[in-house]
Amino acid sequence: MAIETTGLGVALADVQAAAGRLKGVINQTPLQVSRTLGALTGNEVYLKPESLQRTGSFKIRGAYNRIATLSDAERARGVITYSSGNHAQGTACAASLLGVEAVVVMPEDAVPAKAAATRGYGAEVVFCGTDSLQRQQRAMELVAERGYTVVPPFDDPMIIAGQGTAGLEILAEQPDVETVLVPVGGGGLVSGVALAIKESNPQVRVIGVEPAGGADARESLRRGEIYTAPTIDTIADGLRTKRIGTLNFGVMRRYLDDIVVVSDAEIMRAMHLLLTRAKLLVEPSGSVAVAALMADRAGLKGQRVVCVLSGGNADVELVGRVLAAGDGG
Amino acid sequence: MAIETTGLGVALADVQAAAGRLKGVINQTPLQVSRTLGALTGNEVYLKPESLQRTGSFKIRGAYNRIATLSDAERARGVITYSSGNHAQGTACAASLLGVEAVVVMPEDAVPAKAAATRGYGAEVVFCGTDSLQRQQRAMELVAERGYTVVPPFDDPMIIAGQGTAGLEILAEQPDVETVLVPVGGGGLVSGVALAIKESNPQVRVIGVEPAGGADARESLRRGEIYTAPTIDTIADGLRTKRIGTLNFGVMRRYLDDIVVVSDAEIMRAMHLLLTRAKLLVEPSGSVAVAALMADRAGLKGQRVVCVLSGGNADVELVGRVLAAGDGG
Repeated sequence: MAIETTGLGVALADVQAAAGRLKGVINQTPLQVSRTLGALTGNEVYLKPESLQRTGSFKIRGAYNRIATLSDAERARGVITYSSGNHAQGTACAASLLGVEAVVVMPEDAVPAKAAATRGYGAEVVFCGTDSLQRQQRAMELVAERGYTVVPPFDDPMIIAGQGTAGLEILAEQPDVETVLVPVGGGGLVSGVALAIKESNPQVRVIGVEPAGGADARESLRRGEIYTAPTIDTIADGLRTKRIGTLNFGVMRRYLDDIVVVSDAEIMRAMHLLLTRAKLLVEPSGSVAVAALMADRAGLKGQRVVCVLSGGNADVELVGRVLAAGDGG
Repeated sequence: MAIETTGLGVALADVQAAAGRLKGVINQTPLQVSRTLGALTGNEVYLKPESLQRTGSFKIRGAYNRIATLSDAERARGVITYSSGNHAQGTACAASLLGVEAVVVMPEDAVPAKAAATRGYGAEVVFCGTDSLQRQQRAMELVAERGYTVVPPFDDPMIIAGQGTAGLEILAEQPDVETVLVPVGGGGLVSGVALAIKESNPQVRVIGVEPAGGADARESLRRGEIYTAPTIDTIADGLRTKRIGTLNFGVMRRYLDDIVVVSDAEIMRAMHLLLTRAKLLVEPSGSVAVAALMADRAGLKGQRVVCVLSGGNADVELVGRVLAAGDGG
């Protein structure tokens, strides 16, 4: 592991090391210019389509980096996670690629397709209860019984370093980028990308985007301490975390220029534009950066902007609704 | 113009010259690996996503190359075309980029969105009648009156050379490709890609894919002369040509290994898989190569295969139908 120089538990060298591990494992997701969004917003706009990433989201970056840096003994015992979404698929796929046994604890009412996808990547799925606390408890029991290592969704230096590799790729392709907009859930992606970019070029602005119905990270930065949202209500199912991670908070406080929020209607309009104009299926959580740009939430004009599209695992029924609603969604 | 060495009116050097002209003008559309299609069909599968090309289809390649190679006098007088689909948008955008006036003759019952998109690229839209013969006649009148040059959709050496640049890109990225599957409409794309690939590496197989309800090209190759289909009935609106071009026929006869056909139901299943698994919105015409692979129409096993996705300009209502039909579409 790199000598940590930031006082934050994770440093640029960790992201660079993660990039080395991920080479040849993850898909390349080259930036795509969007002239439609450029003309609409008065900027030069590029999309970073992690919707086209292996497993359909950026999550494999962190999960692979975490599992690859476990000790041989830990790898021999296997890993476990209790996400039901993109992190489950990322962990399952990463573990399989590294020859490590993986267990995913899912709620009893999980969408069958998600359980099937996770099993498809070779993980064992254990169903338990319907709320996240029950799942977490069951996972901890299994850790105690079978010695698994937990692959956390965001509050971990190797997870943050893995997600940050997307930031290095953005800089390598567009060294003159001026602003990068990144979705904020638990803070894994945004902290990694902010760290990678700011430590490489402090001139680039990095702005987080949260759904208005779950803007706990913005509140945390305002208060100067981690805030737990009492409730979350947003269409962006990947960003429904009530509380960002501790390490993530430290990194975000140091490097993030701002956090802005978008409504569910704005998210649906962004999904509609991405699908009908950019021809990309992007899930609601992955569309918030474009939603913020379209709603002029960050006051960007005449800039070279990159919007990170964090994932594409959208529910088919929702896509139908987005199309039916049209661009007034 | 290059010295033509094939006896076909167009040669590899023309494609290479076109690639030089298109550099910095068109989008890069890097190959995307599809592990889903790989596992499903027992091959190593890559997608060439021209759905992500500028104007939403490959058509800008040929149109730009054609207009860029006009004489100064021709360019000063402007260009005209009578397509109502992707070629109209490709021509309008290419003309605008080259500072050339463009007129597009469209049917009176054209989808308003298509007329709007064509105008959005800066072309003048002239409405005339409802069948293609009326449109062609109106275009010829305007040619006589105003001295426009026609930008033909496929039967032209510079159009073929432009479309062939997609073939050069495939070889540059995957020199060890074994089979390339390409949609067949009027024959512009398939002849250009076959020429570019076979003249560079004759070991690569190039197979055309037609909708079963409009398989005139396959019949033409069988008969050894161009066959005109009496009727065309297919969901793939971009491939509804009744008759391939003369130059295209010559190139296809020389270089194409085979033409296979797919049904509308197979096309819809391919669209569904591309949208839900590859996260790409691909129009019906653009999905035929994947449909052929999924239906095992070309007998491919254990091969490195590239499927060309020719465009993404799918009608929103159709996308809703594809999603509702699911993967049994």
